[in-house]
Amino acid sequence: MAEKARRNDLIFRPHFKTHQSVDVGNWFREAGVEKITVSSVKMASYFANDGWKDIFIAFPVNLLEAGEIDRLAGGSRLTLSVESPDVARRLAGRLTNSVGVSIKIDTGYHRTGLDPGDTAVIDQVLEEIGATGKLEFTGFYTHAGHTYMAKDRNEIERIHLRSRDLLTGLGQRYRKDFHRLVISVGDTPSCSLVRDFDGIDEIRPGNFVFYDLMQQALGACSIDEIAVVLECPVVAKHAGRMELLVHGGAVNLSKESMHFGDRRIYGLVVTLSEKGWSPPWENTSVVSLSQEHGIIKTDRGHFDSVRIGDTLGILPVHSCLTANLAEEYVTEPDQFLSKTRS
Amino acid sequence: MAEKARRNDLIFRPHFKTHQSVDVGNWFREAGVEKITVSSVKMASYFANDGWKDIFIAFPVNLLEAGEIDRLAGGSRLTLSVESPDVARRLAGRLTNSVGVSIKIDTGYHRTGLDPGDTAVIDQVLEEIGATGKLEFTGFYTHAGHTYMAKDRNEIERIHLRSRDLLTGLGQRYRKDFHRLVISVGDTPSCSLVRDFDGIDEIRPGNFVFYDLMQQALGACSIDEIAVVLECPVVAKHAGRMELLVHGGAVNLSKESMHFGDRRIYGLVVTLSEKGWSPPWENTSVVSLSQEHGIIKTDRGHFDSVRIGDTLGILPVHSCLTANLAEEYVTEPDQFLSKTRS
Repeated sequence: MAEKARRNDLIFRPHFKTHQSVDVGNWFREAGVEKITVSSVKMASYFANDGWKDIFIAFPVNLLEAGEIDRLAGGSRLTLSVESPDVARRLAGRLTNSVGVSIKIDTGYHRTGLDPGDTAVIDQVLEEIGATGKLEFTGFYTHAGHTYMAKDRNEIERIHLRSRDLLTGLGQRYRKDFHRLVISVGDTPSCSLVRDFDGIDEIRPGNFVFYDLMQQALGACSIDEIAVVLECPVVAKHAGRMELLVHGGAVNLSKESMHFGDRRIYGLVVTLSEKGWSPPWENTSVVSLSQEHGIIKTDRGHFDSVRIGDTLGILPVHSCLTANLAEEYVTEPDQFLSKTRS
Repeated sequence: MAEKARRNDLIFRPHFKTHQSVDVGNWFREAGVEKITVSSVKMASYFANDGWKDIFIAFPVNLLEAGEIDRLAGGSRLTLSVESPDVARRLAGRLTNSVGVSIKIDTGYHRTGLDPGDTAVIDQVLEEIGATGKLEFTGFYTHAGHTYMAKDRNEIERIHLRSRDLLTGLGQRYRKDFHRLVISVGDTPSCSLVRDFDGIDEIRPGNFVFYDLMQQALGACSIDEIAVVLECPVVAKHAGRMELLVHGGAVNLSKESMHFGDRRIYGLVVTLSEKGWSPPWENTSVVSLSQEHGIIKTDRGHFDSVRIGDTLGILPVHSCLTANLAEEYVTEPDQFLSKTRS
């Protein structure tokens, strides 16, 4: 992704909400990354403590956190997300340090952000920003999360181009007053699949660091590009219904599911080995989760190959939520539980 | 619940996986509770460190954790869940301290446990237990989780009675050899609604400490008995679609949803006040969650009553998962964020 950004002359500001790890952050440093994106003040604080100096909090600013924001802005270049004149004014009134402000634009996902046609409100936000010495307008950003609902690569490309055109339209309108404004896009499906970044200045993908089954279903990655797995011990076997019970539930995988063939699944199963892990088992998926229990439905061959006390790997449906629930990662196969404790 | 247990001459061994808090644990101590249930070795360790001396880990034993189990069993009375002869034998071989063993019975939920008719396997488990000085058979337990799929109170009662009969049948068969065996049931819907506990020795409900919208839908509690709420700041408003955006997503509520009228919802919304909180808002629910974003759909009146920077309360669909994701609780309305930071 860093290479793709370089090739396209884009600022690469990866989203760190997926991994939430200073160690993984260091891999990005090694790839030349200096600017990052996070989705909460708490995450900003965590990475600022690790020496990151240019942090964009890509989530509508929470006025109740103005104190922490101001403290952080004293030590790092902080950019905040604002989408209302009222919030811009109230925020400025609570800060002593300067911060950047990017305006969130809704290009069709309809989660949050201003309509790109609503230039009257954008003008008001810019006016409030201009009225204070504390806020500096940095540009427009969007998260085209509707690519996650796309049915194929072509649709992802169409969504991306439409989203891009809406943003660059705003860029043209406001660039005469703000020469250095940045047009920023973020979703992993677009950033993975699209080749045309004309008019875009910055990308902020996050999920690509691990990918997951949802991204694979979208065509954003191949199955062997999924780079994270949850190791789960097998604690019971039920031959009558060809089910394996693992200690690995909603407290590990969240309750994220997806359609897979005619099933709703919560993960696919792999064998862990000294080289990493196998392709997903055929005829096998995580079919149910409760707080700590995961139920894997499989076939006779796989069922018989497993002994209680073995561990299995689960490829997550949504790696961001799984990683958020993990307390730690291991990075080498010889650190798998099965190797260290058996 | 403690009072109900006393009235019915039942051992009250509440499940602490719902709250996972030593402070809430102390409230149980004040109610006379000395025996507790948890669902992982980690939770057992957390509560053992707080002085709890009689802990049942109601989850099929994970052989990879035999070391931690043995260490814990040196300081507390530990009971484990076993449902295979192989596991009983291998477990005993890895322990130096004695532990209790309860056999999990599947009375119809089909998540895990032995079929009550499978007395041949039960005999084998008991034989393995008897062959070692380390394991002591304590009885049979079940989690009739299929009460969560019941359509009304009568069905919950029917499931409970059927489950009870299956367990007491086993009790009669094995009590001649094990005079002190304990018959233990656990689900909150049954423990809340049922009055007939004949033949049962112990109850292990957990969720009732907070209850939630799912329990309310089942009739296990009233809406004003829900005792936990997630406080979320409002960070954006979208008048065109009557939506409020809060900072409160899948990392706070998990991705647990339920049917509510013709909608799928992730929570209901209340107003926080000095007295606690209001009844749920009419025409309002959490309709979508992503990692950090929660989207509330509401009506004009409620929409207009809210200002960005206010906080709202969200009653969770499933309190266990919400509480598991929380880092801390506050117990007094004057500790609400809106009071302490505005």
